[in-house]
Amino acid sequence: MSKLKNDLLLKALRKEKVERPPVWMMRQAGRYLPDYIKLRDKYDFFTRVQTPELACEITLQPVDQVGVDAAIIFSDILVIPQAMGVEVLMPGRSGTDVEESKGPLLPKTIQTKKDIDNLTIDGVEENLKYVLDALGLTKKELNGRVPLIGFAGAPWTIFCYLIEGKGSKTWEKAKQFSYTHPDLTHQLLQKITTITIAYLKAQAKAGADVVQVFDSWSGMLSPEDFKILAQPYLVQIADALKEHVPVILFPKGSWYALRELSESSANGIDPIAIGIDWSITPRFARELTHNKITLQGNFDPAKLLAPIPQIKKWVKEMIDGFGVQQYIANLGHGITPNVPVDHAKAFVEAVKEYQSDR
Amino acid sequence: MSKLKNDLLLKALRKEKVERPPVWMMRQAGRYLPDYIKLRDKYDFFTRVQTPELACEITLQPVDQVGVDAAIIFSDILVIPQAMGVEVLMPGRSGTDVEESKGPLLPKTIQTKKDIDNLTIDGVEENLKYVLDALGLTKKELNGRVPLIGFAGAPWTIFCYLIEGKGSKTWEKAKQFSYTHPDLTHQLLQKITTITIAYLKAQAKAGADVVQVFDSWSGMLSPEDFKILAQPYLVQIADALKEHVPVILFPKGSWYALRELSESSANGIDPIAIGIDWSITPRFARELTHNKITLQGNFDPAKLLAPIPQIKKWVKEMIDGFGVQQYIANLGHGITPNVPVDHAKAFVEAVKEYQSDR
Repeated sequence: MSKLKNDLLLKALRKEKVERPPVWMMRQAGRYLPDYIKLRDKYDFFTRVQTPELACEITLQPVDQVGVDAAIIFSDILVIPQAMGVEVLMPGRSGTDVEESKGPLLPKTIQTKKDIDNLTIDGVEENLKYVLDALGLTKKELNGRVPLIGFAGAPWTIFCYLIEGKGSKTWEKAKQFSYTHPDLTHQLLQKITTITIAYLKAQAKAGADVVQVFDSWSGMLSPEDFKILAQPYLVQIADALKEHVPVILFPKGSWYALRELSESSANGIDPIAIGIDWSITPRFARELTHNKITLQGNFDPAKLLAPIPQIKKWVKEMIDGFGVQQYIANLGHGITPNVPVDHAKAFVEAVKEYQSDR
Repeated sequence: MSKLKNDLLLKALRKEKVERPPVWMMRQAGRYLPDYIKLRDKYDFFTRVQTPELACEITLQPVDQVGVDAAIIFSDILVIPQAMGVEVLMPGRSGTDVEESKGPLLPKTIQTKKDIDNLTIDGVEENLKYVLDALGLTKKELNGRVPLIGFAGAPWTIFCYLIEGKGSKTWEKAKQFSYTHPDLTHQLLQKITTITIAYLKAQAKAGADVVQVFDSWSGMLSPEDFKILAQPYLVQIADALKEHVPVILFPKGSWYALRELSESSANGIDPIAIGIDWSITPRFARELTHNKITLQGNFDPAKLLAPIPQIKKWVKEMIDGFGVQQYIANLGHGITPNVPVDHAKAFVEAVKEYQSDR
């Protein structure tokens, strides 16, 4: 593997001094990019995800076109349910009845001990070989330009989909299952955790320089429930991975967990970062984490719809709030399809142009 | 008007000593109650809302059947757009094309200065006479058993619907409008605020003992945006109302605003309370508000799907966290249709049975 020409992301994760923060955007390879839309119109979702050449091409687009400091492999968090033997239908997939406008659908949900026992957790390297191949190919094509990020869904978030089978405003069935079947819940969360650790280790081996764990629905949990249902599994993953690859945990909405999650990272020495959304100010996030962990975030993606000078002003204020060191500039959630490419570029440029007044 | 036999809610709002906290549930008159479903199957949404006898009957159901310490008038936050001259279609309404499963639809959204200028803010007492009549009738039927709560949507939340015309996961069009047209945004927010103040004053005159302002979508705003788009209007409403009727502000998800909102309530002397959801612990909410304001909340409605002994244990822990004084036991969001009536009753009973260990 060639040495990285731009290693800002790795430096920020190792808490080394940087001249400016690295910047990338969640969902940066996606629906706001015209070249992505061309591929989307030509190939269905799983063809794009399962064909390494297509996944690689999509992954590289924002590096070439928007100038981000990291690539994140084009894939989906629901490949883990698939690798466990659960059918997943995606919107727009030909030959299915999932409407274009709806989210993913898992026709057979997990409801019993037998369902859980039947889930496979072995063989992730074969079952998800296409992701590992896509990572290897992308790593080669990147040729050291920027680091490559791998990812997986967090156990709680995958649990939500396995139990409910589709998106939910409340995830109340997943919560109900956890309240009425605590033992089965922890069995299932542990199975997801075990396969996710194997999957992320395989990603690191295949070329991922960093991995991010997306807990998209952790913020639906109360602080007490988060400690039972999300935190132990996030920490288990971070602990298992940290000697293999730097880890970014993104428990969206769970600002209340910042203190404990930052303390669970052995004295803040490990290359573990926490991603946050915009429901907390940068300064308060720093306060809660005692300035000892790398933070990532937290620009409201809706702000990318504002006029460009306004975007640039807000980016500056955001970096003022986080500080330049131990910080990864990013959005607080995925970029949305309506964002003009120029506005995404302005976000990235504003980080690159950052000059502190202080 | 007859004197209240149960004035726990008013005592908690006036920060007077109580033996136990008052308890009610957001959306307590609704889809989890079989008697409500019978009326829903017989009359469409606006018939239920606009017929004082029906609204009264629905409002009384949870008082009679679940034993809550307050009634909240059966109505909808979107009556304000209607009173402003905007058409609102509701799911299941006969003769419209809004599907049963979808939320409300406002076919003509607000986009221009002319649209805003055309909005009516006068005549709310005539335009929403049916709500005032329903309040008067319900007050009479309650005969002093428990206080009656009136309500309205908060300006930011109403703004979201006026701009976008339907529900949204991100409210990014409403935010985009606010970023690109700040002057029009504040004109519109002020018009909504002005009519809402008149509406809530009329509700107090018609019999509401307390009013609650629902900012259902404030939590989608960053702390900085909340201060610009939500807070000034919430405070304006609270200030205008506090000499007429106690006010509960419920900026859902905006835990970050607790400190400032509690400080904006003149030294905590006014009968103003803040409702919170379950994304913050009771103890931290108390810390942020310096124990000087009445708090309401914050049980995750999904927890009502747990076994009853578990519900009772959690309710006790919640009250331990908030303390008995200056506290209104409630959910952190509306009760959901799947909750068994016995579980809702268990929630209410647990509050009534509360004994502190301390």
